[in-house]
Amino acid sequence: MSRRLVVIGADAAGMSAANQALRTARRTGADLEVVAVESSDVVSYSACGIPYWVAGDVDDADDLVARTAAEHRDAGIDVRLHTEATALDLDAGQVEVRDHATGTTSRLGFDDVLLATGAAPILPDWARDVPGVLAVKTLADGAAWRELLASDPRDALVVGGGYIGVEMAETLARRGLRTTLVTRGEEPMSGSFEPAMGALVRAALERAGVEVVTGTEVTDLETGPDGRVRAACVNGDPVRGDVVALGLGVRARTDLATGAGLPVGERGGLVPDDRQRLTDGVWAAGDCCEVLDRTLGQHLYVPLGTHANKAGRVAGTNLGGGDDRFPGIVGTAITRAGDAEVARTGLTSRWAREAGFDVEEVRMDSTTASGYMPESDPVTVWALGERGTGRLLGCQIVGGRGAGKRIDTAATAMWAGLTAEDVAMADLAYAPPFSPVWDPVQIACRRLAERL
Amino acid sequence: MSRRLVVIGADAAGMSAANQALRTARRTGADLEVVAVESSDVVSYSACGIPYWVAGDVDDADDLVARTAAEHRDAGIDVRLHTEATALDLDAGQVEVRDHATGTTSRLGFDDVLLATGAAPILPDWARDVPGVLAVKTLADGAAWRELLASDPRDALVVGGGYIGVEMAETLARRGLRTTLVTRGEEPMSGSFEPAMGALVRAALERAGVEVVTGTEVTDLETGPDGRVRAACVNGDPVRGDVVALGLGVRARTDLATGAGLPVGERGGLVPDDRQRLTDGVWAAGDCCEVLDRTLGQHLYVPLGTHANKAGRVAGTNLGGGDDRFPGIVGTAITRAGDAEVARTGLTSRWAREAGFDVEEVRMDSTTASGYMPESDPVTVWALGERGTGRLLGCQIVGGRGAGKRIDTAATAMWAGLTAEDVAMADLAYAPPFSPVWDPVQIACRRLAERL
Repeated sequence: MSRRLVVIGADAAGMSAANQALRTARRTGADLEVVAVESSDVVSYSACGIPYWVAGDVDDADDLVARTAAEHRDAGIDVRLHTEATALDLDAGQVEVRDHATGTTSRLGFDDVLLATGAAPILPDWARDVPGVLAVKTLADGAAWRELLASDPRDALVVGGGYIGVEMAETLARRGLRTTLVTRGEEPMSGSFEPAMGALVRAALERAGVEVVTGTEVTDLETGPDGRVRAACVNGDPVRGDVVALGLGVRARTDLATGAGLPVGERGGLVPDDRQRLTDGVWAAGDCCEVLDRTLGQHLYVPLGTHANKAGRVAGTNLGGGDDRFPGIVGTAITRAGDAEVARTGLTSRWAREAGFDVEEVRMDSTTASGYMPESDPVTVWALGERGTGRLLGCQIVGGRGAGKRIDTAATAMWAGLTAEDVAMADLAYAPPFSPVWDPVQIACRRLAERL
Repeated sequence: MSRRLVVIGADAAGMSAANQALRTARRTGADLEVVAVESSDVVSYSACGIPYWVAGDVDDADDLVARTAAEHRDAGIDVRLHTEATALDLDAGQVEVRDHATGTTSRLGFDDVLLATGAAPILPDWARDVPGVLAVKTLADGAAWRELLASDPRDALVVGGGYIGVEMAETLARRGLRTTLVTRGEEPMSGSFEPAMGALVRAALERAGVEVVTGTEVTDLETGPDGRVRAACVNGDPVRGDVVALGLGVRARTDLATGAGLPVGERGGLVPDDRQRLTDGVWAAGDCCEVLDRTLGQHLYVPLGTHANKAGRVAGTNLGGGDDRFPGIVGTAITRAGDAEVARTGLTSRWAREAGFDVEEVRMDSTTASGYMPESDPVTVWALGERGTGRLLGCQIVGGRGAGKRIDTAATAMWAGLTAEDVAMADLAYAPPFSPVWDPVQIACRRLAERL
């Protein structure tokens, strides 16, 4: 008799796992049945793409779907849409599911279950159920945004200065709305960027026409007679917003797991081992999980599609009878803010000091190409290293075209535990349209190595 | 009494060394005098920028000069232009120099001498002193090209399919000339790229309007009644060329060194140790030297500005009383061919097999950004790994905007000795405008890891 794997949540982590489990089972000869239950009507979509769909860069929601339910079914996965997992009975090896189409509840037995329940946007009380106020998380959110913008609103308010906030501010300004971004941080992105680098993001947003208000929390909204949002209270003053984008972060959706008595970590996510296993027959991957930061040796909550895909794949290999390990993260991320590419990896100076590292840092201005080339744009690189070992601990980049993906050099170096000096002398690609003769990341690492 | 360093050749390697020597001497307290002799009238220029100057991307030759002789003099370096080193007397510690301005010859004593004599373009007999036939090496070459193109020629012939050949073909096609590139290789770039990757370069050149003729050597030219070049004989047929660009490579300029009894390596360059020292008081850096390939553990001849700058800096630190080592190269390079970014690092499959490595390779098509984004362009990644160790041995990339500098991920991985599996699971930057959720380099490494 075949083993049955039930995957709960059919998005990046869940469907990576489901596919990889079947693929591995074919190789190992394991007899595996895979059922994936999904409460919504869509699977395997790119949540990261939603701001660009709202912006109009992407025409059709279907383009954001990497693989449809039908395609997954063709690949042998029993995908059940509109099917919500409402309870988990670990002793019985059953998950209780409600079929939203029929309203019926039933139990589904499993040998293994993978929790890939994802994350939910943080929604303050003032933001609940106010027409015109929307998060940016699901395809349904994206569709609602497209509809909202079709009504030709004039003023947009973005609450939150993290990735989603910055991306939505860019999007809404590009759509022609008078856009204000409000963040409680000292600068945009200050949750994971140095303030001086955040200031460059702020400048880029301002160049893109976004007004940026920092050091302030929105605590209340004003609604019009029609009940729709009209403004928010910022520093005691009302700031107009016919539409309000919520970018206050997300939290792991763990109700199902905690309801079954499974523990969560300090950051509120599930904490599977490096094979993505929580306990016998119970696995987890994606935005419902914390991930190991290799530099800190601690679990952090970093809900990103790239980690979800990798962790899902690892879980799938193990569930299919193979052996794979999730090696952790170094904290790499990238986004765009107007004409600026914005990227990071590793620790901030604050995280490093709090973790007890003895650090030095540098900030350097350079250019993305040789200064005499028309392609040349300014770029600023910040780098952090550890005294004694000389090890590179972090890097942040804000600059023009071609700046952002240079973070991968620093990320790969951190992955390998290289020193700043190693990076300074590494053999990176140079030609005038692409780089100064010393790559900007290398210049920063050279200066850093000198200080270390 | 101060020690005198004489630097012969005032370009990337020489002036990096001169500056770094003085900088280090200030730190170590060494009493150092630095004299730099240069036979031409220009120092510290970007030879790599010349095709772009010829193309008109750069307006003024001065823009290609990183630092003028006057600026170097202000920094304390005694720069002597129009001064050719004609002989080296190691026993006496003297270099014989001829002043081209006055025609006088004199001797210049040194405690240390740095040979930074660079490289000379390979010039077949048929190409010597034919008006309209030019190499692309010096600023004087660049000026001659600008003058040549001002006369509005119609047909251009580029001889050689390496970096300079490809860059000049792009340049001349962009300037509106009917351009033919002739290479004896199976494909363009076939000296250091896999044929299948070279075929992509050929396609890009063809899209840019360049006719590409492979597997053929030009052995003779036809000149008109005015003595100017008119055509070349290619496969027995004349191919029109009012201008002919020579891109047949360069060779190390070592006459001065060999004249003094110093040996050269198997590839024709000087072979300094990792401190850039040849023998007591004699140092060398830049295009006149071979460099250590870290993967092969052998010295190769790879005359690139990026290595010259690094090696010059290392020499300078040591000459100033510090201690630095040149760690070698992995063979990273990048260029542009029409709309394609073209980059490489590490070994080709042929080099690897010849060196006795047991290898696997993959070639993968992906996109530079998420497929649904307007920024998304095709990219092809080739990767080579070693069976047994799983180590990444080489990578090549041809693709659209944002493709090329991704080679730095592979180069950094090779620098650190990472496996293909390490790269496959590394934490690289993902957001829809910049990458698919698995970076193309990562996808290739994942497939490669599966095969290894």
